[in-house]
Amino acid sequence: MFQPVCGVNFKLKKETIPQDCMAQKPSIPKGTRDFNPAEVAKRNYIFDVIKTEFKKFGFQPIETPSFENSDTLMGKYGEEGDRLIFKILNSGDFLKKADNEAYEKRDSLKITSSISEKALRYDLTVPFARYVVQHQNEIDFPFKRYQIQPVWRADRPQKGRFREFFQCDADVVGSKSLWQEVEFVQLYDAVFSALKLEGVTIKINNRKVLSGFAEVIGEKDKLIDFTVALDKLDKIGEEGVKKEMLQKGISETAIEKIQPIFGLHGNFTEKIAGIKEILSSSETGMEGIKELEFVEKAIQEMPLKTAKLDLDVTLARGLNYYTGAIFEVSAPENVKMGSIGGGGRYDDLTGIFGLKDMSGVGISFGLDRIYLVLEELNLFPEAVTQNTKALFINFGDKEALYALKAVNKLRNESVIAELFPDAAKMKKQMNYANKREIPFVILAGEEEMEAEKFTLKNMKSGEQQKVDFAELVKVLR
Amino acid sequence: MFQPVCGVNFKLKKETIPQDCMAQKPSIPKGTRDFNPAEVAKRNYIFDVIKTEFKKFGFQPIETPSFENSDTLMGKYGEEGDRLIFKILNSGDFLKKADNEAYEKRDSLKITSSISEKALRYDLTVPFARYVVQHQNEIDFPFKRYQIQPVWRADRPQKGRFREFFQCDADVVGSKSLWQEVEFVQLYDAVFSALKLEGVTIKINNRKVLSGFAEVIGEKDKLIDFTVALDKLDKIGEEGVKKEMLQKGISETAIEKIQPIFGLHGNFTEKIAGIKEILSSSETGMEGIKELEFVEKAIQEMPLKTAKLDLDVTLARGLNYYTGAIFEVSAPENVKMGSIGGGGRYDDLTGIFGLKDMSGVGISFGLDRIYLVLEELNLFPEAVTQNTKALFINFGDKEALYALKAVNKLRNESVIAELFPDAAKMKKQMNYANKREIPFVILAGEEEMEAEKFTLKNMKSGEQQKVDFAELVKVLR
Repeated sequence: MFQPVCGVNFKLKKETIPQDCMAQKPSIPKGTRDFNPAEVAKRNYIFDVIKTEFKKFGFQPIETPSFENSDTLMGKYGEEGDRLIFKILNSGDFLKKADNEAYEKRDSLKITSSISEKALRYDLTVPFARYVVQHQNEIDFPFKRYQIQPVWRADRPQKGRFREFFQCDADVVGSKSLWQEVEFVQLYDAVFSALKLEGVTIKINNRKVLSGFAEVIGEKDKLIDFTVALDKLDKIGEEGVKKEMLQKGISETAIEKIQPIFGLHGNFTEKIAGIKEILSSSETGMEGIKELEFVEKAIQEMPLKTAKLDLDVTLARGLNYYTGAIFEVSAPENVKMGSIGGGGRYDDLTGIFGLKDMSGVGISFGLDRIYLVLEELNLFPEAVTQNTKALFINFGDKEALYALKAVNKLRNESVIAELFPDAAKMKKQMNYANKREIPFVILAGEEEMEAEKFTLKNMKSGEQQKVDFAELVKVLR
Repeated sequence: MFQPVCGVNFKLKKETIPQDCMAQKPSIPKGTRDFNPAEVAKRNYIFDVIKTEFKKFGFQPIETPSFENSDTLMGKYGEEGDRLIFKILNSGDFLKKADNEAYEKRDSLKITSSISEKALRYDLTVPFARYVVQHQNEIDFPFKRYQIQPVWRADRPQKGRFREFFQCDADVVGSKSLWQEVEFVQLYDAVFSALKLEGVTIKINNRKVLSGFAEVIGEKDKLIDFTVALDKLDKIGEEGVKKEMLQKGISETAIEKIQPIFGLHGNFTEKIAGIKEILSSSETGMEGIKELEFVEKAIQEMPLKTAKLDLDVTLARGLNYYTGAIFEVSAPENVKMGSIGGGGRYDDLTGIFGLKDMSGVGISFGLDRIYLVLEELNLFPEAVTQNTKALFINFGDKEALYALKAVNKLRNESVIAELFPDAAKMKKQMNYANKREIPFVILAGEEEMEAEKFTLKNMKSGEQQKVDFAELVKVLR
């Protein structure tokens, strides 16, 4: 549905072309990206590996619309989140229905809901919750779904942060079984092993352990401040964490009580022993430990392929909504990269849409960061970006027909071959093959046609040989 | 980044939950769709087949952002198109920069560009043109790209017309060679043959033939009205077409001159002979015939697998921007469905963005309609929607561990198996397997564990057998 305005297709006289159509310098909105063929191929490689493992683990794909009704999204991500949601302007005479008071006051914030009814998806979790509630009668619970779709955020773009990016989520909703936590650890291991990204660490924690800490130090109502500060241990160190806790009004005595947290070391079991001492008086805390031990024990029984499971009691993921397990995956130690995945359990996923008591647990893969890690470690298989295997040189219509017949037969053998579309100068055609890194060029002129042969040139070695079709297939396959 | 507002995750007291958070009845915007697992699987089947053939033909994937700068899109699709483009509201205090005059007059149309700088992609052609110009120095021409991404249109939703839908486009830019037209016919044939959708008709026409008609009847300046009317022959019949032409000011004498068009019949060659007589005095028209003959001759030399190539001189696709070949694919005759694909050549694809003389030719596949046709003809392979092959019944933690170990080993053998997460009542677990149409259920209690066996139950036949792991793999694979 592409119509010729601005002289795109009609040969309008120059002076009749509207001014703003001339020499428009093309660009894309900040924070968005074009992906070229090599990039798409590499991204698809990651998607395909993730999808394959998702499926093996019994997850099923769903897709939801790119935009939702605004009231589905607004108020779900906090005030800051609301601000970062991209709103879609109503169609037609949208000002007609604009809120009069807001209009008079020129109040952008207040007017928004009256001129915009739809908004771009901000994550996949809220749309999933909406989906589950809307389709609850068609769904067999527990429902294991995966979803790989773009999301949009009006964040300030910066290195590695985009306004459009893909999320890859797998969640189970409708069961509180800890076997699911076990399986998510295995799923992380399966995906990163399949990507040949060995040596990732799957860090696990439990919200109940964090609650237990707050409880035993007598700061139950400062749980959020407490966990937010503790979560920063990696970045600001022990002193920094303590300073922030003090600033937030957590007493020195309280901080002293959790001192052992900073001294935790050793393996999973040893760390568990360490926090058991701290949490012995907290029922919630001990519950959290029991859950962590369940997962750890199961993984000991079924060793991971290449990943390592570790306990990180500081892990809170800056988020306050996990109610049980909390996961985060960090790249191998030799790569400087934040987390490449994360997730956890949230006990009331769908309550907001009126469906109570639906526990959910899920994990997410950070595509863009995984991409950067694979790139840095040179882990993309070479075949991923390979495409056309052979280019037939075009010597004119008669030869082109001979070539295209061979091209067709090669395609039936799943060999990707192309005919250069124009009978251009030899040099131009060879250059094209070179630039596109097509490994073989095939020359077939009158002589070859008569003998039903092809001259096959290896672009790397420069070697040439005359072959028949069967041999051609053999070399190219 | 899902934060607990509205009591999603925090256990707020009921009275503290904001009113509008209660019992929100979830829905999605009109014209959009949720896709359930079976639907996603079927859609992906079509996408995968199309992608495989695109790749075989040497097309490479690109992806562009979901939203573009408004000036990239606006003015490219006509006034109606501009209206149907979804605009994204600027972030922050957008009214601050609102056009004052438009604000005072409450002029929705005029104010838009001052409060919205970005818009959702309306098709894939304009973004592709923008991409080519922006990245011209990295691209090796001729550039064969494919792109499969959603587009958005604020059209009035109706049966089969959506506000969000996928386009699947393959285009070549940078060559005028007619071999490309030949290859697109072959590509259509390859895709529909791979989908087992036999008997589609690939209709071809040429803009130069249409121009020739207008020329020989002396109505050159009424070309658009003429072709738009002619394009409706299918729907409104000969009399209807003539009536519309008259209404548009095309003279009776002129209409008489093209009378032979309505009487064309026979095969491709016979129809060509028929229009040759009409167009003999038009250089442009004869050029069009030459191009059509080129394609037809090549296809005769390389017969199509299952599709039929036909000449349809009424074909204009309601569009005015094609300059050479025009394609449209219609479903097999026994299915009532409009076109399931279309395309053509446009001589100046990128001129609008300042890059002249880039001829493009491309085709598009109509995913939603192809889906409906495959559904109607029952052509989706059964395997497409199959997922979990076996469900292990959960009898408690000890048995669950035994089961999950087997599940892991099955996954390594690429068999999709699941453990029911909870040690729920047997009936509930069997019901779950039934509803999800999982073909096998595996029971492993104490007895099986001791013997290192599994009781395998075929859910269809009801048969049960005790097997070891090797036999289990054999049956499930």
